[in-house]
Amino acid sequence: MRFIDVIARKRDGHGLSRDDIDGFVHGVLNGAVPDYQASALLMAIVLRGMDDQETSWLTEAMVRSGDRVDLSDVAGATVGKHSTGGVGDKVSIVLAPLAAACGVVVPKMSGRGLGHTGGTLDKLEAIPGFRVDLPVEAFKQVLRDVGACIIGQTASLVPADKKLYALRDVTATVESIPLIAASVMSKKLAEGSRALVLDVKCGDGAFMKDASSARRLAETMVAIGRRAGLRVEAVVTRMDEPLGRAVGNALEIIECLETLKGAGPPDLTAVVERLGARMLVLGGVESDAAAAVRRVRDARLSGRALATLARMIERQGGDPGVVDDYTRLPAAPSRAVVEAWRPGCVMELRAGAIGRASSVLGAGRARAGDAIDPAVGIVVAAPRGAEVVRGQPLVELHHRDGRGLDAAAALCREAIEIGDELPPPREIVIGEVR
Amino acid sequence: MRFIDVIARKRDGHGLSRDDIDGFVHGVLNGAVPDYQASALLMAIVLRGMDDQETSWLTEAMVRSGDRVDLSDVAGATVGKHSTGGVGDKVSIVLAPLAAACGVVVPKMSGRGLGHTGGTLDKLEAIPGFRVDLPVEAFKQVLRDVGACIIGQTASLVPADKKLYALRDVTATVESIPLIAASVMSKKLAEGSRALVLDVKCGDGAFMKDASSARRLAETMVAIGRRAGLRVEAVVTRMDEPLGRAVGNALEIIECLETLKGAGPPDLTAVVERLGARMLVLGGVESDAAAAVRRVRDARLSGRALATLARMIERQGGDPGVVDDYTRLPAAPSRAVVEAWRPGCVMELRAGAIGRASSVLGAGRARAGDAIDPAVGIVVAAPRGAEVVRGQPLVELHHRDGRGLDAAAALCREAIEIGDELPPPREIVIGEVR
Repeated sequence: MRFIDVIARKRDGHGLSRDDIDGFVHGVLNGAVPDYQASALLMAIVLRGMDDQETSWLTEAMVRSGDRVDLSDVAGATVGKHSTGGVGDKVSIVLAPLAAACGVVVPKMSGRGLGHTGGTLDKLEAIPGFRVDLPVEAFKQVLRDVGACIIGQTASLVPADKKLYALRDVTATVESIPLIAASVMSKKLAEGSRALVLDVKCGDGAFMKDASSARRLAETMVAIGRRAGLRVEAVVTRMDEPLGRAVGNALEIIECLETLKGAGPPDLTAVVERLGARMLVLGGVESDAAAAVRRVRDARLSGRALATLARMIERQGGDPGVVDDYTRLPAAPSRAVVEAWRPGCVMELRAGAIGRASSVLGAGRARAGDAIDPAVGIVVAAPRGAEVVRGQPLVELHHRDGRGLDAAAALCREAIEIGDELPPPREIVIGEVR
Repeated sequence: MRFIDVIARKRDGHGLSRDDIDGFVHGVLNGAVPDYQASALLMAIVLRGMDDQETSWLTEAMVRSGDRVDLSDVAGATVGKHSTGGVGDKVSIVLAPLAAACGVVVPKMSGRGLGHTGGTLDKLEAIPGFRVDLPVEAFKQVLRDVGACIIGQTASLVPADKKLYALRDVTATVESIPLIAASVMSKKLAEGSRALVLDVKCGDGAFMKDASSARRLAETMVAIGRRAGLRVEAVVTRMDEPLGRAVGNALEIIECLETLKGAGPPDLTAVVERLGARMLVLGGVESDAAAAVRRVRDARLSGRALATLARMIERQGGDPGVVDDYTRLPAAPSRAVVEAWRPGCVMELRAGAIGRASSVLGAGRARAGDAIDPAVGIVVAAPRGAEVVRGQPLVELHHRDGRGLDAAAALCREAIEIGDELPPPREIVIGEVR
């Protein structure tokens, strides 16, 4: 096989064979396919697409590029969860202990935040002492004992994805549904769960800006999972505004704890309940969706899920005292507010700009490897639909010595629209793929 | 400017600005744009295209990447000629001395043959002693004294094209009309002629397989030339069969000499007359097309053009005795024929396969830098339209000790179709862009 012929086939809109795709993934890793050939093929894939069969072959080749986690010696129904990511997306930290408290086992491996805001690992690391680098055996022991554990992906998992993602990141070839789907699903398959619930975010603060792209991504990922023998479903949820009120690592941990105490914001609570119910059904713990929702709600309101999170924190080296004492979490030394410049109703609170504002304050990374500040971030005081008078705080900026404050405030003003009427209500869950 | 944003713009189908394109060409040369980013952009250009304005900017940026030849101290009307290349395409070697004998100055810089068969330089080098590496000053002196000179492109001419072409060649991004047009026209503009006639080949043995692509390439190149202030026209000519009867370097030199003696094959003669007439009109030597054709024909049939070629050969270090004594040219030690396997009419003689057959015998290169054998090649005994009896020679293979003979014979059999009726006649010139 001459690799240039593979590139030409995709350039001309033809399908690739399994051998073509295996040669690509293998060649990228061992250097037989140089970066300049790989990036030409990636661009051809972005513009010509791949069908479900090609995407499955790509996913499988990527899985085979590294180790697979063997969870066969962890008893119970393992159900993974993955989100395509958004601003204020703290769902995993609430959902993993919640589903575990209902009887499923939630082995969660996460990536670092690549976009505006910190990722799940960054948020957890805001808890003093919390370790996301447990060895696989320790990870499995926490799963056996607690039912939930959240760690970083190990280096040996899907090395082809790391290499390809780094190349896509610098060649404008990230934006491709088959490439995104193969990247996500290769990692999820390598993580070894038997079932998986996907949260595909859609809107201004998400990778997929419109409902039809989000749905196609969801369908593609579900199709890949099915072909690989996984029980898998996707829920498409709205990411036009930040999820919940808090954006920033320690601030989001507090919001997670509040949610597990029954005092969370309604949008976050709704997403957690819907995903949690599907995890229980996929894990075989409940067969009826309504019963599953009741069971998830009971675990949250009874405090059982909060206790599970406290145990998970403790077993991962963190201070479980944060659950009751938020002063043990890092806090920013200063606060500022952006005030309403006119009376009216908050019509929009665009997640993208809020996310960038939070990042500018220090809560996210401009590039991989940058340090983040766990304390800083943004709390929404007047969410979409709130009526405000002139001068009323719209968002509260938690900053450190003014770092990024002016730029963040400007971004928040750009993000917020104040109008004269109540905006139409929006459902947080906008689709499902089963 | 972040280069990834430039890639993303073209990926999304938007136009690039002059700054974007300058940054690309400059960055590719100085290393600021790594190969993997350049190849991603090239693939996006292949699939999204570029308009005439973008293509002109690309061409100009490439011209500025190196030196321009200054022909202002060469008196007379300089008219360049370029062919997009085909099998048996020896037109330049006939046409340059022919147009010079009619009073225009033909400064011709050629590339090496990249495809199946040798290029113009390889053909000329079949003449013992012929040098294609004259310094620019010597080139200009031959132009002043003889009116025609054919040398290789100097290394300082359009270095950006050399770098980009090498990358396109290994990333399946050669096939793009704007990229091909910019590559050709940047070199022609850098060569410094005031006028240019383009021969755009179309058909099985050419880069452009169909008339509409060939026409678009011709229009694009003419548009670029016009924007740069060049007097330029294109003629689209057929390349379904090899041009003339000979394919192979020394064999083609003999055919060139025969043509300048009035005994050339009709298709080659027709192309030479048409292009020659246009060169005279563009150079201002004749204003009337019919008069220009008569003048070209007279220069050929009177032997004046042959004498001009002999002087050009001599001034470029070659043995002018070859003009009258073909035994001074290298000859292959052995010959074989492919015979007609049935009686009938030659319906097709596909140039692509004949070209590959000639290459397999040693007349072309598999990769840049390969040595070629000037003596070997193919002579068509029964051209398209010929009636043949069973066993009659169709093509004659000039080989060296059987090298590549079986494969070449098989390719020739594949190339030739014998049918029952006379094939419909075909015009050799199929279009013009003025």
